Amino acid sequence: MDRDGLRVNARRLQRSLESLARIGATADGGVDRLALTDADRQARDALVAWLDRLGLRITIDDMGNIFGLRAGRDEGVRPVMMGSHLDSQSRGGRFDGALGVMGALEVMRVLEESRVVTERPVILAAWTAEEGSRFTPSKLGSAVWAGDLDKEWVWGRPDRHGATLLEELERIGYKGVSPCARWPFQAYYELHIEQGPLLEAAGRAIGVPAGIVSLHVYDVHVSGEANQVGPTPMEGRRDALVAAAEMVLAVRALPSTAGGDMVATVGMLEVAPNCYNVIPEDVHFTVDLRGWDEALVERSWERLAGEFRGVAARHGCRLHAEESSRTGRTEFDPGLMRRITDHAEALGLSTMSLVSGAGHDTAHLAGVGPTAMIFVPSIGGRSHTPAEETGWADCAAGADVLLRCILEASGTSGD
Amino acid sequence: MDRDGLRVNARRLQRSLESLARIGATADGGVDRLALTDADRQARDALVAWLDRLGLRITIDDMGNIFGLRAGRDEGVRPVMMGSHLDSQSRGGRFDGALGVMGALEVMRVLEESRVVTERPVILAAWTAEEGSRFTPSKLGSAVWAGDLDKEWVWGRPDRHGATLLEELERIGYKGVSPCARWPFQAYYELHIEQGPLLEAAGRAIGVPAGIVSLHVYDVHVSGEANQVGPTPMEGRRDALVAAAEMVLAVRALPSTAGGDMVATVGMLEVAPNCYNVIPEDVHFTVDLRGWDEALVERSWERLAGEFRGVAARHGCRLHAEESSRTGRTEFDPGLMRRITDHAEALGLSTMSLVSGAGHDTAHLAGVGPTAMIFVPSIGGRSHTPAEETGWADCAAGADVLLRCILEASGTSGD
Repeated sequence: MDRDGLRVNARRLQRSLESLARIGATADGGVDRLALTDADRQARDALVAWLDRLGLRITIDDMGNIFGLRAGRDEGVRPVMMGSHLDSQSRGGRFDGALGVMGALEVMRVLEESRVVTERPVILAAWTAEEGSRFTPSKLGSAVWAGDLDKEWVWGRPDRHGATLLEELERIGYKGVSPCARWPFQAYYELHIEQGPLLEAAGRAIGVPAGIVSLHVYDVHVSGEANQVGPTPMEGRRDALVAAAEMVLAVRALPSTAGGDMVATVGMLEVAPNCYNVIPEDVHFTVDLRGWDEALVERSWERLAGEFRGVAARHGCRLHAEESSRTGRTEFDPGLMRRITDHAEALGLSTMSLVSGAGHDTAHLAGVGPTAMIFVPSIGGRSHTPAEETGWADCAAGADVLLRCILEASGTSGD
Repeated sequence: MDRDGLRVNARRLQRSLESLARIGATADGGVDRLALTDADRQARDALVAWLDRLGLRITIDDMGNIFGLRAGRDEGVRPVMMGSHLDSQSRGGRFDGALGVMGALEVMRVLEESRVVTERPVILAAWTAEEGSRFTPSKLGSAVWAGDLDKEWVWGRPDRHGATLLEELERIGYKGVSPCARWPFQAYYELHIEQGPLLEAAGRAIGVPAGIVSLHVYDVHVSGEANQVGPTPMEGRRDALVAAAEMVLAVRALPSTAGGDMVATVGMLEVAPNCYNVIPEDVHFTVDLRGWDEALVERSWERLAGEFRGVAARHGCRLHAEESSRTGRTEFDPGLMRRITDHAEALGLSTMSLVSGAGHDTAHLAGVGPTAMIFVPSIGGRSHTPAEETGWADCAAGADVLLRCILEASGTSGD
C-alpha cells in the first residue's frame, strides 16, 4: 500500500458535515445542538450508526463520551486517538467540533476502504459537553476522562432550568456502562477550525498551534438598590447596572494597557429585576480573560478587581467577584507539532505557527499523553455564530493532514 | 351624623393590607403578584368577597376592571370614584396599588358602618394591569376604560411567554360581561404611597401632587458581531455590550447636564447570545426619561439618540431606537388638590406640594374628569422592591383624608 498516496474523500467529508449540520439546524444556517438535548442525541445516534457501519468497536462511557476503536495488529500497545465534540453553542456554527469528529470519521473510512492495517489501535473520540453553554464549565467529558474533574460533581451540574447533566445523560440514553477513565495513548490529534482570523489573513492553509492560552473566567455580582425610577432622584441612586457598565468598559480597556496578547470579554450579563421602571438592583456578569502569559493574566485580574471595587464604592454598590474556572496554559507536544508541519508541507499545504485562543478537549488530553491540533481557516475569523464558515477544500486539506499523522503514529503497513 | 368626626379604623385597614400582602407573598417580605396570574386572581377574589360583604353592587368589565358601587340618594348624578390596582411588580412591595384599593375599601366600610347616606353614588375601582411588568405598556385597564388605548390591541398584548392579556383574563375568570368604557364622574381620588423620599425628608404626612411628570420610554437595539472570544483580537471587535455600556453611562449622565427635574434610567437590558465565551451580538435595553417639562424630555432624547449613533458607529454596531410609550404630563384638578390640603390640615396633618414621578391610573382618569392623588410617605423612599414600607399610622392618615374628600364630594347627609 502506498501510504503517501492516500487521501480523504473530500465530497464524502462534505456530505458528512452537511448531514450532521441538519441536526439542530437553525434557519440562519447555524446549529443549535446544546449538550444532551434531543438534537445532541440525534447527532450521537448518527455517529454511532456510522461507526457501526465501519465495523468499529463502539464504547460509550458513563460520561457519555463515545469511542470507536479500529483494532491494530497489536492489541497490547497504546492506541492513537483523534476526535472532538458534537455539541454546539445555542447559536453555533456547523464546523466547531463537528469538523474534528467528521474528519476523524473520514480518516476511519479511508483506513477501512483501503484495508489499511495499523500496528496500533486507532480510536475516534466524541467528547460530551465541550461547549460551556448549557452545562458549565466547558469540556466536561474530556475533563472527567482525564481525571481533571470529579465525575460525581460533573454529573450534578445543573443547566439553567435545574436539570442535571446526569439526568439529561440518562434521558437521552447516553449514560454508558463503562466507567469514564483515562488510558494511556501514543498520540492524540484534534482537527478544528481556527475560530480566528489569522490563517485567512496570512493566506495559510494549515495552522499548527503551539498550545492553548490560559483561560480564566470570573463571576461578578454587583448589588445596588431597587426603586421605582420616576420618584427616585438621580442623586443617591445605587444603580447596579450603571456600576456594571463602567466595569464592562474597564474590561474592554484592559488588554490595550496590560501588554502581551491578552483578550478580555464580558459575554454574559443579566439584570434583576430587569424592568424598565425599576432601578437595577442586581447585575451578574462574567469576565473572560485569556493570554499565553499566565502570570500577566493573573496580575491583570488583580488590577481589574481593584478597579471594580472603586467603581462599586463610588456607586454605593456591593461587589462580589470570584474565579469560576481556570484552565492553565496548555503546551502541545513539539514532536507531534513538527509532524503536522512536515505532513502538511509534503501535501503542498502552507502552514503557520500560532496559539489557540479557544479552549479545546485537547487541553485535558494533554495531561495524559502527547497531543497536538490541526487548524484550518475560518472565513472572516467567525465562530460561535451561525455565520461560522470554512471552505470545503480547507476541511479536506485538514483531514488529509490528520490522515497522514494517524497513519504515521499508528505504524501502518499494507495488507 | 357628625361628618367631621368620622375616622377610618386604622387597625382594620392594617389587617386588610396584611391580608392582601399574604397573596403572592415572597420570602423577603415583598409580593410577587403580576397582573392576571393566579396570585392576582386570588387578590381579586378577596376584594370581590369583601365588596360583596358590604352589599355593594359589583361590576367587572371585559378588561377585568372591578368596580364596587355604593348607591347614593340620587342615582342620576355623576358618581364619586376612588381606587388603584391590585397587581404588583414581580419583586414588588406591599403598598404600591394595594393601599389605594384597601384604603378605598376601608372608606366604604366606614360609610357602611356609620350608615352614611351620600347624594352621589360612590364607586371603588381596582384597575387591571397597572404595572407594566408583565404586559406592556402599563396602566392598561384604566387606559382602555378612559378610551386612551384600543381594547382589541390591549387584549392581544403578549407576556414574555407569548400568553395574551385576553387569554390570561379568561383563564383567571375575570373577563366580565360589561364593556369596558368610561362614564362621567364628579371626582376621582387615588390614595398612594409617594414612592420617593421627599415626604420623609421634609417630615410631612400628606403629599399633594400637582400632577404626574411626562414619561417617555424608548427601546434601543444594538447589533454587533458574535464571535468566539478567545481567538478574536480586541481590534476590530464589534461588541454590542461594550457599545451598550457606553450608552447606559450616557443615560446616567443626561439629567445632570439637561437641566430641569429630569430622571433617566436604563432598567431593562438583555444580551444575546449571553454566553461567557461569545462576544455579545445583540443588546436590547430600555431608556426611561421623565420630567415635568415635556419639551425638555423630548430635546434630551434627541441629544441622547445622537450620542447613541456616535457610540454605535465607533464600535461598528448597528442601532435601532424607537419610542415604545409616551404619557404626556398629567395636571390634577386644582379644586380637588385644594380640598385634599384643607382636609389634611383640618385633621392636623402636615402637607406638601410635589409632583409624581411615577405613572398612575389617575393619569388616564384625568382625561375624563377631575382627579387628584393623596400621597403618604415611603420609608427610605423605597418602592418597586420588597423593601417598600410605609408606617401604618401614615396609611391611616392618608385614608382619613380620602374619607373626608369622598364625604365632601359625594354630598353627605346623616340618616
